[in-house]
Amino acid sequence: MEPGMCGRAYVLAGRLWTAISKALFAEFLATGLYVFFGVGSVLPWPVALPSVLQIAITFNLATATAVQISWKTSGAHANPAVTLAYLVGSHISLPRAVAYIAAQLAGATVGAALLYGVTPGGVRETLGVNVVHNSTSTGQAVAVELVLTLQLVLCVFASTDNRQTLGSPAAMIGTSVALGHLIGIYFTGCSMNPARSFGPAVIVGKFAVHWIFWVGPLTGAVLASLIYNFILFPDTKTVAQRLAILMGTAKVEKMVEAEPQKKDSQSNSEDTEYKECVLLSFIPFC
Amino acid sequence: MEPGMCGRAYVLAGRLWTAISKALFAEFLATGLYVFFGVGSVLPWPVALPSVLQIAITFNLATATAVQISWKTSGAHANPAVTLAYLVGSHISLPRAVAYIAAQLAGATVGAALLYGVTPGGVRETLGVNVVHNSTSTGQAVAVELVLTLQLVLCVFASTDNRQTLGSPAAMIGTSVALGHLIGIYFTGCSMNPARSFGPAVIVGKFAVHWIFWVGPLTGAVLASLIYNFILFPDTKTVAQRLAILMGTAKVEKMVEAEPQKKDSQSNSEDTEYKECVLLSFIPFC
Amino acid sequence: MEPGMCGRAYVLAGRLWTAISKALFAEFLATGLYVFFGVGSVLPWPVALPSVLQIAITFNLATATAVQISWKTSGAHANPAVTLAYLVGSHISLPRAVAYIAAQLAGATVGAALLYGVTPGGVRETLGVNVVHNSTSTGQAVAVELVLTLQLVLCVFASTDNRQTLGSPAAMIGTSVALGHLIGIYFTGCSMNPARSFGPAVIVGKFAVHWIFWVGPLTGAVLASLIYNFILFPDTKTVAQRLAILMGTAKVEKMVEAEPQKKDSQSNSEDTEYKECVLLSFIPFC
Amino acid sequence: MEPGMCGRAYVLAGRLWTAISKALFAEFLATGLYVFFGVGSVLPWPVALPSVLQIAITFNLATATAVQISWKTSGAHANPAVTLAYLVGSHISLPRAVAYIAAQLAGATVGAALLYGVTPGGVRETLGVNVVHNSTSTGQAVAVELVLTLQLVLCVFASTDNRQTLGSPAAMIGTSVALGHLIGIYFTGCSMNPARSFGPAVIVGKFAVHWIFWVGPLTGAVLASLIYNFILFPDTKTVAQRLAILMGTAKVEKMVEAEPQKKDSQSNSEDTEYKECVLLSFIPFC
Repeated sequence: MEPGMCGRAYVLAGRLWTAISKALFAEFLATGLYVFFGVGSVLPWPVALPSVLQIAITFNLATATAVQISWKTSGAHANPAVTLAYLVGSHISLPRAVAYIAAQLAGATVGAALLYGVTPGGVRETLGVNVVHNSTSTGQAVAVELVLTLQLVLCVFASTDNRQTLGSPAAMIGTSVALGHLIGIYFTGCSMNPARSFGPAVIVGKFAVHWIFWVGPLTGAVLASLIYNFILFPDTKTVAQRLAILMGTAKVEKMVEAEPQKKDSQSNSEDTEYKECVLLSFIPFC
Repeated sequence: MEPGMCGRAYVLAGRLWTAISKALFAEFLATGLYVFFGVGSVLPWPVALPSVLQIAITFNLATATAVQISWKTSGAHANPAVTLAYLVGSHISLPRAVAYIAAQLAGATVGAALLYGVTPGGVRETLGVNVVHNSTSTGQAVAVELVLTLQLVLCVFASTDNRQTLGSPAAMIGTSVALGHLIGIYFTGCSMNPARSFGPAVIVGKFAVHWIFWVGPLTGAVLASLIYNFILFPDTKTVAQRLAILMGTAKVEKMVEAEPQKKDSQSNSEDTEYKECVLLSFIPFC
Repeated sequence: MEPGMCGRAYVLAGRLWTAISKALFAEFLATGLYVFFGVGSVLPWPVALPSVLQIAITFNLATATAVQISWKTSGAHANPAVTLAYLVGSHISLPRAVAYIAAQLAGATVGAALLYGVTPGGVRETLGVNVVHNSTSTGQAVAVELVLTLQLVLCVFASTDNRQTLGSPAAMIGTSVALGHLIGIYFTGCSMNPARSFGPAVIVGKFAVHWIFWVGPLTGAVLASLIYNFILFPDTKTVAQRLAILMGTAKVEKMVEAEPQKKDSQSNSEDTEYKECVLLSFIPFC
Repeated sequence: MEPGMCGRAYVLAGRLWTAISKALFAEFLATGLYVFFGVGSVLPWPVALPSVLQIAITFNLATATAVQISWKTSGAHANPAVTLAYLVGSHISLPRAVAYIAAQLAGATVGAALLYGVTPGGVRETLGVNVVHNSTSTGQAVAVELVLTLQLVLCVFASTDNRQTLGSPAAMIGTSVALGHLIGIYFTGCSMNPARSFGPAVIVGKFAVHWIFWVGPLTGAVLASLIYNFILFPDTKTVAQRLAILMGTAKVEKMVEAEPQKKDSQSNSEDTEYKECVLLSFIPFC
């Protein structure tokens, strides 16, 4: 009897599990650090209240660091809006998208809880929960979050597409996140990232206008993904191919693959192969 | 009968149209985002008036993001002064330059209108229209805008010339735009870009000193283009070649072409070929 | 009689000594400059008290400069926590780690002394010694320093691992150091680096809570090293190989090796070979 | 009779002259822009006095832009201290160093004059002339300028040495200049560059402590050049070779040569060959 399809299937399943759990851990870690440091920058320390510029720059650096850390493991989404944009552009499968978003929300909650734990009581306040400022209407808030996320997702695609690698993704995505904050803080405190809004909301239990920070960013992300993937840089995938990618039954070329010639033999080259496979493959009876 | 010259001509015209409309859309989008975020940074929110440094950094990031997004599609001008400089240096044709500037002005107007729409009434004010500050004379204002744009255009050429690719164009051009703002805001609010001045002026209907923000930047851009293309990095084009490029009847080597070896097969390689063709080629009777 | 093993051993020892003393000098220099400029940024000049943002940006630039200067000579640790992280990840030997930390502490002390010397008496104060702010508990202080250093060390590994070279190490590590300061200054003045805390403490003789700035950063560094080297990017070293690297009896592949193809013949290629050898090899009787 | 040595000598002299005059023009332009924008950032506009951070960031961006513009033409010194450091490290000839410094001083003076011309009378003040602050002694001022320039020149070498190209030279040298300003502004207004001190001093006629801004920076530059070229990254040049380079009778390998594989045929490849020749070659009688 040969080693058999069944044995090979279990080996594949094991490798797949390793790759998936690593990617989910990286998303968890990146989002957790992003929320800990980003939200940490808005704490109202009486000795020196943070300025809008200071908060925006902190989000810049927090993004750059989170991207740098998780880039080669998970693709550094750390944001449900970015994950949705990749899904819409047929770059990842639906099971992967769902698992990523779950990991991001868990990471954001743990990051916010950790920040709550280390912060002195008098400074915690509402832990940087996103709110809509007095003079801004709900419609304006949604529209602003939409535009902020639109430019972010366009910049994410432009900075991670291997057809046009331009500078460090970490630095460029950080740039775009900071840009959003410099304008958005005045309107809504600036989310652009449902996970960033979710973590603090869970910890302090404030969900009054929370829906805005899902609707605005996700709409902007879908719009940006359509603009990028269907107008500016259309690819040649057929509808059948898109469906197969969506369901996780097709292997797609990895979109992000900086400097492949430097990959050494110890690298996680086998991860790449299985990354886009279906998340839960059934290998029941042998 | 063969497929024929006529059929081929229509195919070419179709491809040409795709490439051109993509480039114009990219210029529209990049300029729109630049104006939305750049001008958005000068809104006088009472809770925290923006500092000169904050405005300059926002323009830095807005430029970097706009360049990153439109770089591979249109060359990321997003500024009539930059387009004029490329025209003077024989890098683009006159029809392309005219179409780009139209797209930029349209984008700037839509970006300003969008900002006006999402901003609460009390904060709109004159929507960041460029004005000359009290103690500055008109001559000084023109001279300052000229010098600001001179350094910007020199930096744009140095950062996009494939004879000397040095770091990320998005980051470097952003650097140069911020530098101009750190000095220029005090004198004129800092334009360096007629489209950035045009958009808000249309929305609030203020054109009193608007001419300054065309004359200063365009003069500086022409001067910088002459310095770069005829003194610092002269090329060997003949007058006949320059004329052909100007009229759009010559294919020029693409000036901007970062990392050509990474271009994959799905990329818009056919765009490149036709980009510099005449905008409206006559294919009348077959 | 041949040139003999003994002669060759002396030649090797000489080369080894050159490489080691260069690396130690680079660590001394980098840490000295880091402390001079970093701690210099917190001096309370009455004319313009530095803001949190200004201090964080200074530490960003000081890190980038120190890394840039010492990168190819010593690997640019300039921080005992980073050295410990490389040791735990089996990238350097124990003798090298001990020598590096000694050089770092010496550099930090000289840097702090130099700063003390050039600073007018009224501005010296406690020379930026790290302290725990009133409302923060000791446990919170340790936890904060742990998290700050965790993200720093993750970013250091991600930015220097030749399996994933992403942008300039100097810029990215500076980013991460600044991120830590933007949050950490409020809690502890922000150390993330025992040497940075040690230098000023020696000069002004304040060691009250000094232990916190060893325990927090070193714990965070070990944790980050385990996450990076055993979860995110595991390699295939055996326990025996790790022991050999630890003791300095094995040559390991250099982890940091950006753009080897550009190394010219004058470069210190022989240094590489001996860098990981045992620090003090006994060549007694011949 | 052949074309002859004499004819060829005149051709060589012509090319040489083109290369030299381009390099000198680039130094003039880069230093002029550096002084115009850098010194422009310290003008005391009553509406919003510039902060230390704002000034430092402006010098960062001014340096990055000046380096970006002049990098491939002259090597982007724009600073007599940097030119002296290259001379001491045997990278350029004495005639070239003298010509560069003359061009830099001329550029700085024109830049300062231009700034004076466009600035309203009430804001000109002493045009950012470097002075020693009250509480700082002369010795401390010299020492501070020495340390500031030491780190700058080390960073310049590390960022331009083709044995270790690390990131964009423009961004890294800008980083280092900003670092110096964040500390140095409090002590001396921060020079690190005799040309930056010279320009405004000429325009407003204030030379009281001007010598400090030559002695401090030049000493720091020499020290840094010795550390870099003789300790950290020693090369194998003999004393005879160093003398030949000094006198301009030897061709040295160009130190700065980023991405030579991208150089296209239109590039100034012939410049390179003659750049290091003696400035004034005598071709008297034929």
